[in-house]
Amino acid sequence: MNLRFDENGLIPVVLQHAKTKEVLTLAYMNEESYNKTLETKETWLYSRSRQELWHKGATSGNTQRVVSISADCDQDALVVAVLPNGPACHTGADSCFFEPILEGDGGPSVQAIAALEEVIKDRYAS
Amino acid sequence: MNLRFDENGLIPVVLQHAKTKEVLTLAYMNEESYNKTLETKETWLYSRSRQELWHKGATSGNTQRVVSISADCDQDALVVAVLPNGPACHTGADSCFFEPILEGDGGPSVQAIAALEEVIKDRYAS
Repeated sequence: MNLRFDENGLIPVVLQHAKTKEVLTLAYMNEESYNKTLETKETWLYSRSRQELWHKGATSGNTQRVVSISADCDQDALVVAVLPNGPACHTGADSCFFEPILEGDGGPSVQAIAALEEVIKDRYAS
Repeated sequence: MNLRFDENGLIPVVLQHAKTKEVLTLAYMNEESYNKTLETKETWLYSRSRQELWHKGATSGNTQRVVSISADCDQDALVVAVLPNGPACHTGADSCFFEPILEGDGGPSVQAIAALEEVIKDRYAS
C-alpha cells in the first residue's frame, strides 16, 4: 500500500466511531503520525494550525483506540475506526460535526420512501 | 453559517450512507457545487483532477440523494448523508474505502472488551 500524501505531506483522515459509525472528526496525518498510529493503535494526527504532531487526547485524556484503518481507491484518504475514551471534539461534543446545515430533507418522509422502496423490491423479487 | 473554503476555494466533504452510516467517499466541494447540492438535494462535487464541477452520478446514473448536511466545529469540513442510487466508487465498490490497512485490532476481542465494559458500567450503575 503506497499512501499518497499531498504536497504538504498530509493525508486527510475520517475518524469514525467503530460502534455507532458516527463521523467524529476530519483531520490530517503526516507520515510520522500515521506510523505512530499503526505502532500504538491510538490516534495520532498532525495539527495544521500548530504545525506539530498531535497525540489525540494526550492533554484531555480523550484518546482513541484504533480498531481498523482503510484507505480509499486512490490511496489518498483514510477512514480510521476508533473507540473513543471521551468526546472527539474540543468543544466537548461527541462529534465535531454538530452544526446542521440541512436536516432530514423532509425527515421521516425520506425514510418512509426508502422503506417503501425496499418493500416493493422484496415483493418484486418474491 | 460561514463555511471556510481553503486557499483553493475547496472544502472537504465526507459522503456517508444515510442508512448504513458507511463512509462512502472523501471528496471536495467548491462554493458552486455546495450551492448546487443545496438547491438540487443531489451530490455535486468539484473534481480536483479534472478541475471542474462534477454532478456525482451524472454519467453512471449513480446519483446520490442528499438527506442531511452538517458542518464541523471549525466550519471547514462537511458530512453529507446520502441515499445513493448505486455504488459510490468508480471501481464499482459501494464505498471507496475498500483497501484494508489494519483490520480489527484483534477483531472480536475488541468487541468483547467493549461489551464487557458496558456490562461492568451497567452493573456499577445499578
